[in-house]
Amino acid sequence: MKRKVYLDDLPWEEALENYLTYLERIGALHPGRPESIDVEEALGRVTAAPVYARISSPHYHASAVDGMAVQSADTYGASETTPKHLKVGAEAVLVDTGDPLPAGCDAVIMIEDVHYVQPDVIEIIQAAHPWQHVRMVGEDVVATEMILPANQLIRPVDIGAALAGGILKIYVHPKPKVAILPTGTELVQPGTELKPGDIIEYNSRLLGAMVKQWGAVPMRREITVDNFKSLQEVVASAVDGADIVLINAGSSAGSEDFTADVISSLGKVLVHGVATRPGKPVILGEAHGTPVVGVPGYPVSAYLGLDLFVKPLICRKLGVVPAQRSTIEAIISKKMVSPLGVEEFVRVKLGQVGERVIATPISRGAGVLMSLVRADGMIRLPRLSEGYKAGEKVPVELFRTPEEIRETSVIIGSHDIALDVLANYLRQKYPAATLSSAHVGSLGGLTALKRGEAHCAGTHLLDEETGTYNVPYIERLLPGREVVLVNLAHREQGLIVAAGNPKGIQGLADLTRPDITYVNRQRGAGTRVLLDYLLRKAGIEPDLIQGYELEEYTHMSVAAAVKSGSVDAGLGIRAAAQALELDFIAIEEERYDLCIPAEFWETPHIQRMLAVMAEPSFQEEVRNLGGYDLRDCGRVMWRSKAIQG
Amino acid sequence: MKRKVYLDDLPWEEALENYLTYLERIGALHPGRPESIDVEEALGRVTAAPVYARISSPHYHASAVDGMAVQSADTYGASETTPKHLKVGAEAVLVDTGDPLPAGCDAVIMIEDVHYVQPDVIEIIQAAHPWQHVRMVGEDVVATEMILPANQLIRPVDIGAALAGGILKIYVHPKPKVAILPTGTELVQPGTELKPGDIIEYNSRLLGAMVKQWGAVPMRREITVDNFKSLQEVVASAVDGADIVLINAGSSAGSEDFTADVISSLGKVLVHGVATRPGKPVILGEAHGTPVVGVPGYPVSAYLGLDLFVKPLICRKLGVVPAQRSTIEAIISKKMVSPLGVEEFVRVKLGQVGERVIATPISRGAGVLMSLVRADGMIRLPRLSEGYKAGEKVPVELFRTPEEIRETSVIIGSHDIALDVLANYLRQKYPAATLSSAHVGSLGGLTALKRGEAHCAGTHLLDEETGTYNVPYIERLLPGREVVLVNLAHREQGLIVAAGNPKGIQGLADLTRPDITYVNRQRGAGTRVLLDYLLRKAGIEPDLIQGYELEEYTHMSVAAAVKSGSVDAGLGIRAAAQALELDFIAIEEERYDLCIPAEFWETPHIQRMLAVMAEPSFQEEVRNLGGYDLRDCGRVMWRSKAIQG
Repeated sequence: MKRKVYLDDLPWEEALENYLTYLERIGALHPGRPESIDVEEALGRVTAAPVYARISSPHYHASAVDGMAVQSADTYGASETTPKHLKVGAEAVLVDTGDPLPAGCDAVIMIEDVHYVQPDVIEIIQAAHPWQHVRMVGEDVVATEMILPANQLIRPVDIGAALAGGILKIYVHPKPKVAILPTGTELVQPGTELKPGDIIEYNSRLLGAMVKQWGAVPMRREITVDNFKSLQEVVASAVDGADIVLINAGSSAGSEDFTADVISSLGKVLVHGVATRPGKPVILGEAHGTPVVGVPGYPVSAYLGLDLFVKPLICRKLGVVPAQRSTIEAIISKKMVSPLGVEEFVRVKLGQVGERVIATPISRGAGVLMSLVRADGMIRLPRLSEGYKAGEKVPVELFRTPEEIRETSVIIGSHDIALDVLANYLRQKYPAATLSSAHVGSLGGLTALKRGEAHCAGTHLLDEETGTYNVPYIERLLPGREVVLVNLAHREQGLIVAAGNPKGIQGLADLTRPDITYVNRQRGAGTRVLLDYLLRKAGIEPDLIQGYELEEYTHMSVAAAVKSGSVDAGLGIRAAAQALELDFIAIEEERYDLCIPAEFWETPHIQRMLAVMAEPSFQEEVRNLGGYDLRDCGRVMWRSKAIQG
Repeated sequence: MKRKVYLDDLPWEEALENYLTYLERIGALHPGRPESIDVEEALGRVTAAPVYARISSPHYHASAVDGMAVQSADTYGASETTPKHLKVGAEAVLVDTGDPLPAGCDAVIMIEDVHYVQPDVIEIIQAAHPWQHVRMVGEDVVATEMILPANQLIRPVDIGAALAGGILKIYVHPKPKVAILPTGTELVQPGTELKPGDIIEYNSRLLGAMVKQWGAVPMRREITVDNFKSLQEVVASAVDGADIVLINAGSSAGSEDFTADVISSLGKVLVHGVATRPGKPVILGEAHGTPVVGVPGYPVSAYLGLDLFVKPLICRKLGVVPAQRSTIEAIISKKMVSPLGVEEFVRVKLGQVGERVIATPISRGAGVLMSLVRADGMIRLPRLSEGYKAGEKVPVELFRTPEEIRETSVIIGSHDIALDVLANYLRQKYPAATLSSAHVGSLGGLTALKRGEAHCAGTHLLDEETGTYNVPYIERLLPGREVVLVNLAHREQGLIVAAGNPKGIQGLADLTRPDITYVNRQRGAGTRVLLDYLLRKAGIEPDLIQGYELEEYTHMSVAAAVKSGSVDAGLGIRAAAQALELDFIAIEEERYDLCIPAEFWETPHIQRMLAVMAEPSFQEEVRNLGGYDLRDCGRVMWRSKAIQG
């Protein structure tokens, strides 16, 4: 078999259209034989045929109120000056709401308008018109009337109306059966003890939950090893028992990517590769009349592949229109360059800061599933465009509701583990509150405040001249801006080294040893500023440190790099070392503050955070992370001049 | 026990706020003991505690691409002019995506950039920088990192990320158990043979499906008869086994409304009656620490009561924020008067006609569940307002997606049963297409066209002078407007009378008999115009016809009135008589046309309808309704002058 090295790069809309047209032609989009099910069990299913009422509702003339049923003719002429008297039991009959109208009656007088003049005689001062306060037969549903059309997603009200119309069973489209075939010699089931190279097979669960959400039944198969024959057997068996088959992964063109060849051997590959990022190596094919989709292995690519190509398939088989995500307009905080010729799907965090909704891109890696977990929405960077400029308004597809976005407090700046604890406390105390934190370093945070993109910034910037924290930077970067500086914690910075400190690292001077490799933080991070200050003070030449150029964005990634053995040391906070059970050589205590623009001080965003910071249980939990001193937690450390006076 | 006759009328927001505050104070909103469940089963559940990663993902340094793993230092200095040679197996190791980085390697060169110069020697022309194309340990998730906060609704990506982080079980909030107690001596189970006064107990299924949709578990109880003691026993037992108890109905203040007294006897009634329409007689109470809600009996009131008061309760117990329906702005086609002092919830049909979305109110009756089935959205008429003027733009909460609204073809005008068949065929042929038909009579339809509120109008207006159909009316009502008139069908109009024609009605002359009552159609209906024309021609005085003032809006309601025995005859189409197995005395064949403004002719709305009308199976089904002649179905009968030339 010949192997392709380069994939197609059709625009995804065109690929999908071709695929659906082909499948339509071979009859693979037909919903299949309708199932007859109990109306009561039909929530979320889709009608396969119209539902017609068997009986009318109401099926008799019913009183619509509590009152007196009368013959309207008996009341004609009644007025305040010429009241009419009716004998109860003969000319007027007491009825409750829903009671059948007694024979001979054609109207009801509300109980509030009835006055007894004798125990069995009432007086009325207004004529009743025929059929007043009567629910006539069929007011709601008339027998033979269509209650639901075909291809209707069944909601609670539809169940009620069908039962009201005397229907007990209805025909619904069968739920499409989607076989999910995880493939890969390196895959192991969740819970397995892991060796290097083992990959936990979680994709099939992700894909399974997605198709379930769309109304299909996921059928997860066992893991297949990367071997043409094995895969061919499994796919051949799957296409006969399922309506759609998903093969994950092996959809690219590597030496162990058999998916395309297997589909070709059993049927037809229509598309191999689409112009999207992530998600390029997708395969759209068919075997034995069943759609077979090769889903990329990286989880974000797999997610997108399903969203773009499998959701429409399932919806077509169910006879429903795929629901689009709702969109809002947001301002992007960074320039987005469009990758030439492919449409990029950029995950973003969103937050409403003042009147504007701000979108901040998060990791673009196809392997970073957490980018989808953390994302509030997604921006599509069109294929043949120049991208978007910083500050531009762009449409964002929402992963959360607009209410959730409004309730999100945005903190941009330096990374600190205590922020995760804060986020969690906030969420538990105020179910609506979400803390969205973007880690761009202390300087990046202050710049974000300047641009109006955050409710507050986390900062720990040491001014070399004065030896003070944060204030000189704020005065320089946010001149004339009214801000309040509140302490979150004092924390220990030091060298994170392997457990047991096998290389005997004592301090910064050891970083220049030829047997030591270091991992740095990115430019603009307070920790990077601190390192450079300490090196200068100690007269150490950065160029002599191996790995000085290697940058990570968070304390935890620095600790993870040390833990993995790829580097020997990195500067970071004690809590990160403690979390991964690494050794820590303390160097400096520093002040981590929250810089809050005065205009947000009174908003729930800030007041809720301050309330949580005041809680002893929150402070205790942060203290337990290690290396934190909370003596000033929640204390206002400084206010800018404009609001001091 | 004393009985209230008049209920409270608190604004519902205030009632809800008071209720939640009270329940919060007595601890009734606490989610309860967390359940530990398999991550794989957690879709749609809500985390009860944050989820932290147990392992990093990846848990080893992994190649991010297919290529050659190298030590970056070995590649320094490589360029096009000074290529470097590396020995495969020693200095360069072939790796696939996901493979662990071999010992000593710190970078990967993509397979596309590798050139073999000998079978075991490669040449590279660019230096590899450290960690290029490597997914370092923890790139996605770092061990100990928070993957999900507490109170997070679990989505497919969350399941994937938790499994990637080595988590197999997570704590979720228990699903609130909601006991649903149907009460009423008149209630019978669906499927029971019905006597007058029997009411099918479908409300509990409607309410059950609603609470299920919100993430709770409905527990439907047997029907309780209207009796204080029985109800008290049932409620007392329910409050101990459920988190929320719903009593339906008996929530008003009638002689058999025991709900409020029962709740008082076991606990406390906080609110009895709110200022909404429908939905006024709602009871918010508590017994034995469990929220107990008295839900009104009319299905639309019950639906609203749950939506306003029970959904927030369930969401609070689940720790999530209630999702709001998305809203759009629509233009209302009729004035809406605000009922003094109560907030009214008006169900509307929506359709996009040209650039504008048009909202048309449908039945306001609390007993008309079909108004919710048919509605595309809901307008809130505020409590203390003057209402809305026709043509005003008002916010509408959506029951369907904006895509569905866009795909809805709007036909306003005369009612014809063949339109239901057309709607159904449309839906089956084009899953996205919905036909929204509002029945306002032929004149009303032409007026709607004039105001730009419909894609077409169904009309059968006989001009007395010329004896022709529709054209004279269009020329008068839509002067200068370019329209196309297409025939849907010719149909038989006649008198619908009881089966067997017990009163021996022969024709219109019999309508003046003293033993005959008639039901009329509303003013502006083509059938009403026809009746008046025929009466005049026959010299019959309308005043002599009993029931001439009694108006119904559709052929089916006229037939239902005859079927129920409340009237003896009504003018209508044969299909309506045939549907309800009534007798029919043919009087006249008339022409039913669709009047289509030229600007919509080329839109899918019209073209899809014309395609369906051309189908023999559609025509056959209409013919089977009885009384239809389809000789001109789909034929253009006339075009207005402006586009004739």
